[in-house]
Amino acid sequence: MTPSHIEHIAIAVTDLDEALQYWENVMGLKCYAIEEVTDQKVKTAFLKCGETKIELLLPTCPESTVAKFIEKNGGRGGMHHIAFAVENTDQALADAKAKGCRLIDEQSRLGAEKLHIGFLHPKSTLGVLTEYCCK
Amino acid sequence: MTPSHIEHIAIAVTDLDEALQYWENVMGLKCYAIEEVTDQKVKTAFLKCGETKIELLLPTCPESTVAKFIEKNGGRGGMHHIAFAVENTDQALADAKAKGCRLIDEQSRLGAEKLHIGFLHPKSTLGVLTEYCCK
Repeated sequence: MTPSHIEHIAIAVTDLDEALQYWENVMGLKCYAIEEVTDQKVKTAFLKCGETKIELLLPTCPESTVAKFIEKNGGRGGMHHIAFAVENTDQALADAKAKGCRLIDEQSRLGAEKLHIGFLHPKSTLGVLTEYCCK
Repeated sequence: MTPSHIEHIAIAVTDLDEALQYWENVMGLKCYAIEEVTDQKVKTAFLKCGETKIELLLPTCPESTVAKFIEKNGGRGGMHHIAFAVENTDQALADAKAKGCRLIDEQSRLGAEKLHIGFLHPKSTLGVLTEYCCK
């Protein structure tokens, strides 16, 4: 399933205040929402740039996969994943699986902003953690 | 200077044929150009997704900064940088510097697709290698 656009780029951060200071004051974007996603053990802040969101991800506990990403990254934040907007996340996951992709999510689940989300495994996507999402 | 949109997301790859096979056949995007950028020692392939390009970067020699990125990343590809579209790259670089950002490029230079590009240093951007670009 061909995505219509890049829904968001997720960036792991170690300090949300510091990150918002940078993204708002230096990059000039505006944070329009902050949300805690307990399922993913992160606090997220959203900023918009054109049709794409920048989603800042702060882990809320050491077991968060984002905390593990930061640990592997030498304690620093960085680009975490790309999310592609599709018409139907379940169909997009099924299509990717049929083309040989390994899935993290066999079925969609509810993510931040109540989107239906599902991840492909980075071993199948040449190292780019990839999410599909739809409303 | 506030960017209008995300111009491209650059992804380092170790095999351009394999990467195009994935991005075209699995993700359903279309490669519309391949270009060698000798200055940056990379071969790039461009695919469009909404208003944003996916720019695949294959290093053309071991001295390429993209080759070094892949080496540090355990020999694997991955997300390399984000490029933001601005009205004037030189002004955006000057603004970022005035706000305390360390620059890689003090002045813009010509990049792929003849865009005027300039990079901020990831030490000043919370680990996200960041490019400004304009036509």
